[in-house]
Amino acid sequence: MATTGKQLFTTLDADGTLTVAIEDVTFPEPVGNQVLVKMEAAPINPSDLAILVGAADLETASYTPGKFVATVPEPYNAGAKARHGLKLPAGNEGAGTVVAAGESDTAQALVGQRVSCVPGHAYSQYCIGDAAMCLPLGDHPAEDGASAFVNPMTALGFAETARMDGADAILHTVGASNLGQMLTRICKEDGIGLVNIVRKDDQAELLAGMGSTHVVNSASDDFQHALAAAIEETGAFYGFDPIGGGRSVDTAFKAMEQVAARRMTAYSRYGSNQPKRMFIYGRLSTDPTILTPSYGFGWTLSGWLLFPFLQSAGEDVVGRMRNRVRENLTTTFASSYKRRVDLDQMLTKDALTEYSKMKTGEKYLVTPWS
Amino acid sequence: MATTGKQLFTTLDADGTLTVAIEDVTFPEPVGNQVLVKMEAAPINPSDLAILVGAADLETASYTPGKFVATVPEPYNAGAKARHGLKLPAGNEGAGTVVAAGESDTAQALVGQRVSCVPGHAYSQYCIGDAAMCLPLGDHPAEDGASAFVNPMTALGFAETARMDGADAILHTVGASNLGQMLTRICKEDGIGLVNIVRKDDQAELLAGMGSTHVVNSASDDFQHALAAAIEETGAFYGFDPIGGGRSVDTAFKAMEQVAARRMTAYSRYGSNQPKRMFIYGRLSTDPTILTPSYGFGWTLSGWLLFPFLQSAGEDVVGRMRNRVRENLTTTFASSYKRRVDLDQMLTKDALTEYSKMKTGEKYLVTPWS
Repeated sequence: MATTGKQLFTTLDADGTLTVAIEDVTFPEPVGNQVLVKMEAAPINPSDLAILVGAADLETASYTPGKFVATVPEPYNAGAKARHGLKLPAGNEGAGTVVAAGESDTAQALVGQRVSCVPGHAYSQYCIGDAAMCLPLGDHPAEDGASAFVNPMTALGFAETARMDGADAILHTVGASNLGQMLTRICKEDGIGLVNIVRKDDQAELLAGMGSTHVVNSASDDFQHALAAAIEETGAFYGFDPIGGGRSVDTAFKAMEQVAARRMTAYSRYGSNQPKRMFIYGRLSTDPTILTPSYGFGWTLSGWLLFPFLQSAGEDVVGRMRNRVRENLTTTFASSYKRRVDLDQMLTKDALTEYSKMKTGEKYLVTPWS
Repeated sequence: MATTGKQLFTTLDADGTLTVAIEDVTFPEPVGNQVLVKMEAAPINPSDLAILVGAADLETASYTPGKFVATVPEPYNAGAKARHGLKLPAGNEGAGTVVAAGESDTAQALVGQRVSCVPGHAYSQYCIGDAAMCLPLGDHPAEDGASAFVNPMTALGFAETARMDGADAILHTVGASNLGQMLTRICKEDGIGLVNIVRKDDQAELLAGMGSTHVVNSASDDFQHALAAAIEETGAFYGFDPIGGGRSVDTAFKAMEQVAARRMTAYSRYGSNQPKRMFIYGRLSTDPTILTPSYGFGWTLSGWLLFPFLQSAGEDVVGRMRNRVRENLTTTFASSYKRRVDLDQMLTKDALTEYSKMKTGEKYLVTPWS
């Protein structure tokens, strides 16, 4: 018997018209290692927004129930040329109950279980997922497992990446995000030094309350000085940044070099030899990244993405990471949400305008059957 | 008997006053592994200019014989805080004849020989150098060996770095420079693919005449297209850039991603997984480096400096590189100069104004006894 349900699709035409709409879809029977999951909850992560909203003008868009049509201005439209005309699903991750499975033992074993999954089309009433990527949630409600993959595995991935590079302290430029809070708990549990940058006093208090010992507020007058002091105390010449655009990475490198320069015994026109390493793992800002020539040549900046990292890390590491997530779902890896919306509500002007700002503490959860 | 001679010193005061002057100096007796070299020729490399001129305003400077006094504007002056008040020598490398040596066998063996050396104060009639860093020039005149270190070892260092990273093709953003020409010869000899970017037709002809098969002119209308085609043909997702500021690296990453995107079978909002790697090894432009969010997350950008590279490469590799330079001094590693100046002439307005522009093909050679 065919399963039908509602699913979100996003299409960008060559002229810059972005159409995001809920449609009725018939889902195929799962085969092999596939499972069919009746979705109960899916978070709207920053990593979902590029495809869902991108640089579209939400103010001038037209909104009808279950649909919005907006214009993506240039040069963003031209930059997204590769997706022109493609009708794409959205939603990296979510949680729900397995209602059918392919013939493999792994898939069959999940029938009837509530699982966290990473289907890539989670804004939907049903999803086809890979059984190997499902995490059984036991008695946990779906909300506990909706965000069990992207943020937890990314935060753990930072700790793993640092370990592989021999770094024992991390700088994180958006400390109070859901991911930042997870990273704070992980670093505390694993004895990794952590410098958290926040933008508000209440965020600083939140992290301090979680036991974060080095929290620096970028809105304070002595920010640059305080940041350098925190780097000096922790040795965090290694960090992760989800902003990408603007001077976030530049500020971090400058503070790192400031600390390294203080330790130099002789002047060098080339700056210090202290290796400084930053990773951009998101694009909260699509402005260009600005790097000033003020920290010599001893630095490296890379993009960082979860899936390529998991591939390079290997099965053993990934298995260990996933077990740790499952065992600490409501503690280390707990997420919180500002608002729950169904598929139609997520495409209203109010909701879109709010969640597309990606403000810390304002994450949305899609509950497609509510 | 004490040896005296003229030497250049550069001093930046806290108020931004830059004083560069030739002074009479008494040189110490060489001890241990040191040699005293009577300098005959020293090139003015881009890497020397930061300390010699930096961002000083040469138009409003005051010039007297053997001296100029200029103002370094903010924020460059504040950025050079670490050298405020320090009286610094200049000139990374040069060549001359060893006239005295310390007691070590290595040093003694060089007495009377013409050598290439890396004293860090080569704008001088005499230098104290480390015998281990001297390259005996045999019958070569000093001019042949004046630039035997910085450019040759840097160009060879690129090839070594690429090999260590498993890259078999290199993109070089300033192909027609002295260093670029050396790199062209090295890549041809070693079977490494090379994409050379130039800015003028005559530079393209020069490199083509040297057998460079992929030369792209950034002034041509189809530059971006031609660059992508050259990257596609060579597989050069790996490159070196001496400009640093502006969009030089950004342009390279964009073209690399363009090639990688063509090979993708499915759309990904994150861009391709093709690793792209660039190194900034100079600062011909002190503008900020601009990186646009248009090539996903599969990229890494690092600073690259010769001395830290040599330290990490180890003695065997460095020894092999130095032998190759010595054996190919007037072929693979030949340099050419536009003009020869003595120590006083190098501080005249005409000379400073020209060589501080660091134009391709306009390198100066300092001949302190002429």
